[in-house]
Parts: sequence; structure tokens; C-alpha cells
Amino acid sequence: MISITDRPGLAASVRCWPSRVVTMISAMTIPVRTICLSLAGAGRKGQDGGHGCDAICSHQNRGARMRVVHQFAPAMSAMIASLPGVTSAEHIPLDQRWNLPTDADVLFVLHGEGDSRSHDEGLPRPAGWPGSVRLVQIASAGIDDYPTWLFDAPQVATASGTTARPIAEYALAVMLNHAKRLPTITLNAGDEWPTREMQMDKPLASLEGRTLGLLGLGQIARQVARFAAAFDMTIIATRASDAPSPDPNVTLVPLPELVARADHLVIAAPIGASTRGLLGADLLGRMKPDAHIVNVARGAIIDTDALRAQFDAGRLWASLDVTDPEPLPPGHWLFAHPRARITPHLSWSSSETMRRVFERLAENIRRLQAGEPLLGAV
Amino acid sequence: MISITDRPGLAASVRCWPSRVVTMISAMTIPVRTICLSLAGAGRKGQDGGHGCDAICSHQNRGARMRVVHQFAPAMSAMIASLPGVTSAEHIPLDQRWNLPTDADVLFVLHGEGDSRSHDEGLPRPAGWPGSVRLVQIASAGIDDYPTWLFDAPQVATASGTTARPIAEYALAVMLNHAKRLPTITLNAGDEWPTREMQMDKPLASLEGRTLGLLGLGQIARQVARFAAAFDMTIIATRASDAPSPDPNVTLVPLPELVARADHLVIAAPIGASTRGLLGADLLGRMKPDAHIVNVARGAIIDTDALRAQFDAGRLWASLDVTDPEPLPPGHWLFAHPRARITPHLSWSSSETMRRVFERLAENIRRLQAGEPLLGAV
Repeated sequence: MISITDRPGLAASVRCWPSRVVTMISAMTIPVRTICLSLAGAGRKGQDGGHGCDAICSHQNRGARMRVVHQFAPAMSAMIASLPGVTSAEHIPLDQRWNLPTDADVLFVLHGEGDSRSHDEGLPRPAGWPGSVRLVQIASAGIDDYPTWLFDAPQVATASGTTARPIAEYALAVMLNHAKRLPTITLNAGDEWPTREMQMDKPLASLEGRTLGLLGLGQIARQVARFAAAFDMTIIATRASDAPSPDPNVTLVPLPELVARADHLVIAAPIGASTRGLLGADLLGRMKPDAHIVNVARGAIIDTDALRAQFDAGRLWASLDVTDPEPLPPGHWLFAHPRARITPHLSWSSSETMRRVFERLAENIRRLQAGEPLLGAV
Repeated sequence: MISITDRPGLAASVRCWPSRVVTMISAMTIPVRTICLSLAGAGRKGQDGGHGCDAICSHQNRGARMRVVHQFAPAMSAMIASLPGVTSAEHIPLDQRWNLPTDADVLFVLHGEGDSRSHDEGLPRPAGWPGSVRLVQIASAGIDDYPTWLFDAPQVATASGTTARPIAEYALAVMLNHAKRLPTITLNAGDEWPTREMQMDKPLASLEGRTLGLLGLGQIARQVARFAAAFDMTIIATRASDAPSPDPNVTLVPLPELVARADHLVIAAPIGASTRGLLGADLLGRMKPDAHIVNVARGAIIDTDALRAQFDAGRLWASLDVTDPEPLPPGHWLFAHPRARITPHLSWSSSETMRRVFERLAENIRRLQAGEPLLGAV
């Protein structure tokens, strides 16, 4: 029933879950239910019919202590404790989530919701931090929404790359949604079938031959480029480093050229001193009047007021999965503006994502024990 | 300003349009305005700055008569008359559109809106048909929505293939729209930003690893397959012919297996005796409970009542660009059903489409004169 075929140790471990854990799946709280359903789904594709087979456990390093503390749902402790080499796993309550223990070996944490960005107020450094903590495994790709003292731990690793695929799919989804004007042409109750003249009045757009601009060229942007190449888009990118383009379909250009040429501008760069507010009045003003901005990075890379000024001048369109501020307060103008389509920071979401993040934790615990370099090391 | 670089004869011809025609663009009626804007758009990408340059006309076969009659907007006559070898072009009024002249050489016609399908009532055969008509150029890919007597003309050619690209893009658009649940997760005025628990409650889907079923394997389906391969979908297809798969990424399977395995089932087959009502209670009942049907072919390939029965049983989802009946009458249940998303037969629409159809007409007139096989010959 459950199988992770490309991780032999983890596969054996998961098969070791007691029947009780498997039975719990239907009653589990978020996000464990998500993980378990995902794992069960992966298992259906595999060939392993075993479940609850606690006779074949193969934990390694039985002598060494490996205590993991996590911020997720309590029921996840059983899953983490079943990983090879882990001797115990505990949940830390939501209201104490940043009062992290200094006597654990590994901490598995998830970012806040904008509330811990760029300031540590209300998130005091735990006494004696980092103590015996050897690894902090972050469950997100970005590192901007954590207390700064967290990074004083000996090793910190992100889940970078685990969400590149769903985020890139989201980017293509909103690009096509915009090109085909699906929200506009989809008929609703009370509508009438349009006449042929109405149908032909304003043709839909294509991605073919249009120019995709990528701000940033990390794993997300490179995956977007691979998709866009299949649609025969012209692909240009601006990246922070001087490294050459990793993809022959992607041409590196200076930032002013990027914004001026893009029909779709996908923002997939990390937030930082060089990108905060980067897309302000100047660069937005250089864009084509009908250009479409897709933001799957951080809201504050766009100057929200400058974007509104462009919109109010009848320019630009935007599909934003991230906003500034975030969460958007009730009644914020972005909810209702006809040139903006907002989704609530969900582009990472996929039935595979939690499984991949959990696999990252398992793999980095293995690497920690083996003394190998971590995946996603900060 | 105007250039069609891959058709030397046509490019020269278009450059020959009198300044008056170019000036008319802004005042033209549909669909000529669409064509002209499209041509002008193509020109901006090219390098030809000439316009209204009637000194360089290069019409061929000046001695032969070539009279073209079309059903499109009156202003299109000037464009058609400018094609190499064409000596005159006339518009036939909308209310007389099927009272076709028998003394023309070429007729350029567009299908009805479902009203001429499978019956000729009210569309009597013109006296003496086909007379001197040598070619009927159809502006659509399908041939099901024309009077049956039309096909007694010596040669009939479709615009098959000219719309494969935008229709395939539409199919990917609605597949991603469905997977990412964009209509559901997009926030609207009055909405509040969801809590993290709500965000994680039901993960979004991915195309990666999902199975695409293609009913039909013509130009549209093959283009859908090329896009889907970039998303690492598993691609299976059922086609009418015994020909092997033209794409190593596409595995041919029997129809019952196709419907049973597909997560997204894209219908891209012609309508005919073997496909009308094909997706009825039996085959729909074999589909996965959460499968998503995309119909970009003809509505009547699906038994609409059987689809409703599935929906009412809490099964299946559908994105339908074509319906049965079509147009949907006001108040039809499909407009409002939460499991259906309807667009009004627009998947073909693209700023490139009218240019490509016009190029097809020009190329087939050239082939007719040269005695070469037509493109899209019926």
C-alpha cells in the first residue's frame, strides 16, 4: 500500500509503520493527512502491497541518539520516528512554535505567514540556542520568513527544489488562463451563447511566438522555461549571478531589456536587498501596455502602489500568488481590481509536495548521520 | 508594415494593397479587421516597412479569369482580389450566404452555427450547382456544418491544421485550470485570505505523472501530446485508423482502456457515424471518478444526458468548448452545473488564426492554378 521506491531506506521504514498509523490516516489532522494520502497514492502506483509490517524494520545506528522536534501536526511524530536512525520525534505546540528546544538533534520547521519576516519582535532567541541542535530542516524553499537567530544553528537546510515543479505548472496555468481569457469567456448561469460576431470580435492570444521574461533563473524559472519552450515561446531571463545561461532556449538580457520585451514576466527571484521593491514605477513603466506579470516569488518584489498606478492608467495585467502586504487585509484593493487575479500563496501546493518535503527531511537526516553535504544547505 | 515572409507571392501581393485598404483597417467590420490587425501584427515582427506600394504588384496568369466569391465581410473582397492570379472578388450577403453562385471559380465559405448540420432544410441546392465552380475553400477544419450538396463541387478543401495550435493551447489551458482549480482559489472582492489550514486542506493537482487520454490523433491531438510531454504526462490515445503512433510519447490503446486510464480525456476526433454519442453511459461509467473531460471537437460526441447523469452521481468534470445542442439555449443546465465549465466554441480563436486561414486560401488558389494537390483536400 505504501512505497517510496527511490529511497530504499525510507521505503523500508514506511513499511514499518504500525497498522495503527495506517488506520489513523482517515482521522489525521493537516498536514499529516495530506502526506499520508500522498504516500498512499504513491503506493498505489508501485507494486508493494505490504502495510503495517512492523516485523521488517531496519533502523540503522541503533546505538546513536537522534531526537527530532517538529512544528507540524502531532500525528506526524510517528512518521518521523519511523525514519532510519531517528530514535524519537516530538511535536511542539503551535503557540510555542518558535520557543524551540536546544536539546534536540534535528528541528523540522515551517515559515510563518509574513509575521516573522525581517524582524524578530515576539520571536526571542531561545536561551542557550542552538545548544545541541545539529540541523534545522526548513520545509520551504525561501528563507526570508524565519527568525534570524535560527540561522545560527550549525547546519540549516531548505526544501529548495521540492516545489519547483508545481510552482512552474502554476505559472503556465495563469499564463494560459490569461492568454485564453478563461475567466471572461467561460459562460455562467444566466449568460447567453454569444453571436459569431461577438466571438470574433477580439481573438484569444497564443503563447506561441510570445516572449517570456524570467526574473531569476533558479529551479522554478528553469522549469518554467522548459515548459515555455514546448509552446515555442521566446525566452529571456535576468539573473543576479554572472553565470551563463544553463538552457540554450534561455537568453540572458539586462533587466531593462527584460521588462521591455516580456509579454509574460514571471518573477521567480528570492527576496533580498537587491529585489525588494525592484519592480517599481520605473521598470513597470518600461513594460509593454498589455504585458502580464506573474509573481510566484514574494509580493514585496513589486511595489504595490506603483502597480496600482499602472493599472489605473490602463496598463498591465497581473496574476499574483504572493502579495505585499501578505496576507492581504480584508477589503484591500487588489482583491477587486479587474487587472489583477490573486491566489493566496498556493502555487507550491501539490499532492506531491508534502511527500517531497518529507523525503528531503529523511534524506538530510541520512546525510547528517553519514557526514555528507546536505541538500538545500543554506 | 505588412509582411508575410514565408509566402513570397502573398507577401508581394499584400504589399500591393492600396493605401486606401490599409487606411480602412481601423474602420473595417469583422472579421476583416481581425485579419488586418493580425497581418499588421505579423508585419511588425518582420523587416518590411513598405505599405500601400501598389507599384510592385506581381500578379501571375494575368490572362486567366479567376473570380472568387466569399461569405465574409465586404471589405475582405479587396484583400482577396489582391491575391496572385485572382481577377475579381465579391462578397455574398449574409441572408443569401448559401445561395451560392455557380459562375464563380472559387468559393470561400464558413460553416454555420449548428444550423446546417446533418440536414439541408432551408439550404436548397443552387440551380445548376456546381456550374463552373472549381474549388470550395472551407474556412474551418470540420466539414460537418455545411450543406451536403456543397461537396459535389469538383474540389473542396478545408482549413484543417490552421487551428491545431490554438486549440491545443486551449486544451492545456483548461487542463491546468482544472488541476490548479484557478476558478476556486482565485480571490474575489469580499473574500478573505484563507488560513494556512484552509490552504493545506486540499492540495492542488499536477499534470506531472498524470495520464492524458487522446480520443483521436489528428493534428490537434498530436499538438496536445507535444505540450503534455513537456509536463511529463503519460500519454495514451485511441484513433480510428490502424496506423502506428506517430509520436514515441503516445501509446495507442483500445477505447475502453483509454477512458478507464485517463485523468484528462481530450476529445479531438471528427464527428461521424462512429463518434456521434460515443461517450455515453457505458464509456463515461468506466472513467475514473475525478477524471476531467476536455471537448474541443464536437459536442455530440458526448451524450449530454449521460454526462449529466454522471455529474449528478458526483462523478467527472468537464471543460467543454463545444456542446450538444449548440448554441446552448438560454437557461440550459450546462451553463450552471458546478462540474462543467463551458466556453462558446472559441478554442480555435487566435490572432494568428485568420491570417493562417487566409494563407490557406491563397496557397490553394496557387495550387489550383498550378494543378498541384490542394492542402486540406476533402
